[in-house]
Amino acid sequence: MNPKIEKLIKLIAKLPRVGNRGGQRIALALLQDKTGRGNALASAIIDAVENVAPCPNCGVLTDRGAGNCEFCRDTARANGQLCIVRDLSDVWTLEKSSVFHGRYHIIGGLLSGASGVLPQDLNIHNLSSRIADEKITEIIFALPNTVEGKTTQHYIMSVIGSADNVVFTELASGVPLGGELDYIDDGTLTLAFGGRKSV
Amino acid sequence: MNPKIEKLIKLIAKLPRVGNRGGQRIALALLQDKTGRGNALASAIIDAVENVAPCPNCGVLTDRGAGNCEFCRDTARANGQLCIVRDLSDVWTLEKSSVFHGRYHIIGGLLSGASGVLPQDLNIHNLSSRIADEKITEIIFALPNTVEGKTTQHYIMSVIGSADNVVFTELASGVPLGGELDYIDDGTLTLAFGGRKSV
Repeated sequence: MNPKIEKLIKLIAKLPRVGNRGGQRIALALLQDKTGRGNALASAIIDAVENVAPCPNCGVLTDRGAGNCEFCRDTARANGQLCIVRDLSDVWTLEKSSVFHGRYHIIGGLLSGASGVLPQDLNIHNLSSRIADEKITEIIFALPNTVEGKTTQHYIMSVIGSADNVVFTELASGVPLGGELDYIDDGTLTLAFGGRKSV
Repeated sequence: MNPKIEKLIKLIAKLPRVGNRGGQRIALALLQDKTGRGNALASAIIDAVENVAPCPNCGVLTDRGAGNCEFCRDTARANGQLCIVRDLSDVWTLEKSSVFHGRYHIIGGLLSGASGVLPQDLNIHNLSSRIADEKITEIIFALPNTVEGKTTQHYIMSVIGSADNVVFTELASGVPLGGELDYIDDGTLTLAFGGRKSV
């Protein structure tokens, strides 16, 4: 195979969920395109990689050097609620659902012995100052409902400690909308039973 | 969402088999990477798009302006066999299997009323001269086993016409290796029965 194409395929194949076969298809699509998609994509990558950086306050990717992000600048979002998420993709998911209108804080990972993620790897150094500065009254943990997610949540709660006028909440666990009982795992069923409500 | 990121996601999402969700994941991976993968990928795209072009003889992508490709220059492949395929990815698949050691010819598409692919869209203008110049004795059709593939094959056969000392062959149809009969479609079963061999 032509070495230029081989190199391109290798780089594309390493992207999330692409793999070797997908890499070949994408490389071919770019090389056979007559509308300049390849160059447009390359410029968009360079533009974003060079000019986008995490918001110094919350971690959401925003224009580099422009100070705080759109969420942190938006005073309508200063409603006292702070939602702690793992990743920017979680922010996008929540924004799409329009379920939350406060501020975000991206911690950038979950504590994990297996993956070697330690407390100092989490973006939580300014959480306490944010609670004071932004008059936070509720911290909503929207971390994955896994052992790592819960461990990380409890670690963060222990670090922040009990602050006056701040409540900690987490997303409800239970049967997903449209979920049929015989397809639900035992752990979820146990949580759903434990959290049952009178109707 | 930040407009630079939004633009990047849109371009990535349009790549084959990626989609919006995959586009978000890939864009995030590039933006959160600290090892320069984004810039490396952008340069590889530009390098390949600008410096790679179809071989003037067979259509395989090769270094632009460097004349014929590695296959057409390789005299060991001048064994009289010419394999007609739709796409460069078919060449890669055949090369990986090491089943064929002759030359290739990429026609770049299949005749299709639905997609509006016409005879003049096929890369077949130099097929007859290749047969003469490269002393081809067998043309192997390795096109998809579909209506479009067969239509295209018969069209090419009618254009080339019957040349002295050239035989036309096509890949065998039948039950794939490891294929269980109850998972095989009727069309394949019919072809496999019609092509049965004494053992």
